[in-house]
Amino acid sequence: MSYDQDNIFAKILRGELPCIKLYEDEHTLSFMDIMPQADGHALIISKEPAETLHDLSPEGAAACIHTTQKIAKAVEAALDVPGSLVMQLNGKGAGQTVPHVHFHVVPTSIAQLRATPHATTPEKPERLEEFARKIREYL
Amino acid sequence: MSYDQDNIFAKILRGELPCIKLYEDEHTLSFMDIMPQADGHALIISKEPAETLHDLSPEGAAACIHTTQKIAKAVEAALDVPGSLVMQLNGKGAGQTVPHVHFHVVPTSIAQLRATPHATTPEKPERLEEFARKIREYL
Repeated sequence: MSYDQDNIFAKILRGELPCIKLYEDEHTLSFMDIMPQADGHALIISKEPAETLHDLSPEGAAACIHTTQKIAKAVEAALDVPGSLVMQLNGKGAGQTVPHVHFHVVPTSIAQLRATPHATTPEKPERLEEFARKIREYL
Repeated sequence: MSYDQDNIFAKILRGELPCIKLYEDEHTLSFMDIMPQADGHALIISKEPAETLHDLSPEGAAACIHTTQKIAKAVEAALDVPGSLVMQLNGKGAGQTVPHVHFHVVPTSIAQLRATPHATTPEKPERLEEFARKIREYL
C-alpha cells in the first residue's frame, strides 16, 4: 500500500497539526500519545514517509531505536517507575491505527497494558503537558 | 544492577542451552519463543551483555532493530498474517522475565495480545520447529 500523506503523523511532521513535543532531531520526532495507556505514554516517529517498520530504511530504523532509548530512559526517570514497555504495531491487522511507523514507550507493565485498551481514551491536554514537562527535564 | 551472566539467554548465547534458531549475525541472535503469545512468536537478542534497552550501545541497538525488521517481515510472510507486533520490556517492573534485552515479534494484534497472558504456556517443540522452518524460508 502506498503511504498516505494525509495521516495525522504526516500532518504533525509538516506542522499542520499540533503535538506536545518531547524531542526532535534530524530523523525522528517524539511527542505525547494523546490516548495514553499509562501516564507518561510517549511516541517516537520517523521523519521518513514509512507506514510500517518494514518500510523504514536501515538508517531510519536505527534513528528510531536510538530516540526510543533516549525517551524510554527519560520517561522512566520522570515518572519514577521501575520499568517501561516499548511497542510497535505493523499493519491494521496488528491494530496499528495511524499508518505512519511509530514506537510507543509506555511506563507500565505488560500485565497492566493487557488490562488497558489501546488508543481509546483521550487524556486532558493539561495533564499531558505536565508529564511532558517532567520528561523533558531528563532529556 | 549488574548483568546476570547466568540468565537463560546468556546461556543460549554461550551454547550452554539450546534454542530453535531462526537467524544469527555478528551482533544478534533470533530464535523461537518457547512460551509464545501467538503461533510464530519470535525473539531477537543482542550479543552484548545488556539487561535492558538502556544498557545497549548505539551499535547494539541498531543491530537489534535491523534484525527485528528482517524477522518481522519473514514471520508475517511465513504465518501469512496481515500484521505483527514488536514488543520489548525493560525491567521486572515492566514484566521482563529474562534479564537480557530481547525484542519480541508476535504475529498478532494488540487486541489479541491483550487477551493472551505473557510467557506462561510452553508450546510443543515440534510445533515451534515447524513454524521456524517456515520462517527460515523467508529469511
